[in-house]
Amino acid sequence: MTCDLCQPTLHEILWQDDFCRVVLLNDADYPAYCRVELIAHIKEMTDLAPEQRARMMKVVFAVETAMREVIAPDKINLASLGNKTPHVHWHVIPRFADDKHFPNSHWGEPRNDALQTSIHEPSRASILMFKDKIKAYVTCALANH
Amino acid sequence: MTCDLCQPTLHEILWQDDFCRVVLLNDADYPAYCRVELIAHIKEMTDLAPEQRARMMKVVFAVETAMREVIAPDKINLASLGNKTPHVHWHVIPRFADDKHFPNSHWGEPRNDALQTSIHEPSRASILMFKDKIKAYVTCALANH
Repeated sequence: MTCDLCQPTLHEILWQDDFCRVVLLNDADYPAYCRVELIAHIKEMTDLAPEQRARMMKVVFAVETAMREVIAPDKINLASLGNKTPHVHWHVIPRFADDKHFPNSHWGEPRNDALQTSIHEPSRASILMFKDKIKAYVTCALANH
Repeated sequence: MTCDLCQPTLHEILWQDDFCRVVLLNDADYPAYCRVELIAHIKEMTDLAPEQRARMMKVVFAVETAMREVIAPDKINLASLGNKTPHVHWHVIPRFADDKHFPNSHWGEPRNDALQTSIHEPSRASILMFKDKIKAYVTCALANH
C-alpha cells in the first residue's frame, strides 16, 4: 500500500532536514495545526534509536514553543497515532476553549453549540512570525543536542 | 477547580518516582491502556525544562516498549492532550486492527461493525509480565540518562 507520508508532501514545509520535516496543514478548523513528520517510513517511535526519539521530540517541542508564543492557544495537543498512516508523525494542535471540539479531542465529537465556536485564524503577520520562530527554535533545539 | 491528577490516583500505580508515575487505567475497551502522569501540576510539556521533557518521554517510551513486547498491538497511540485536565499526562494506548475504534482515534467514532470487534484482554501471566517489564524498562531508561 502506498504511504501518503512517503509521497511528496502537499503541505507547506516550514522546516526540514534529512531526518524530519515540519509542515503546516492549513486545517480549516485549526489554521496553525502543524505536523512533524519523520522522513523514513518507520512505524513506531520505539523503532527509532533513543537519540533519534529525542531528536524528534525536540522538534515537536520547538514547534510547541513557537505555537504558544505566537498563536497563544489555551492548550496544546500532541499526538502520535498513525493508525491510518503507520509512518511516524506528530500532530501539534493549538486548541482554544471556544474551538469546534473543545474540550474533546479534535478527533472526537464536535460541540453541540457549534454556532458559538470560533476559528482562530492568525493574522498574516502572526503566521509569518510563527514560521520564522519554528525555523529558529528547531534549529536552536537541535544545535544544543 | 480541583485537578483530578492532583488527587490520590484511583488507578493501579505500576511505577513511580517523585517526578512522574505510570498507571494502568483498566479501560474496558483497551485493557492494557496506561497513562504516564507528571506529579507536579504543570500544564504543558514546554513548561518543563528540556531535560525534564526528555525524562518524561523516556518513561513514555519505556512503557511503549513493554507494551509492544507483551501486548503486541498493531499500533501504539501516544497523546498528551489535557483539554479537560490541564496537568501533563501521556496516554499510551495499544491499538488493534479489530478494536472498537480502529483506525480512528479511540476518542473518535466507534466502527460501524462494532459486533465484529474484539477486546484484547491479556492473560493474567501477560499482565504480570507487562507490569514487570514496565518497572524494569523505566528504571533502565532513567539510569542511562
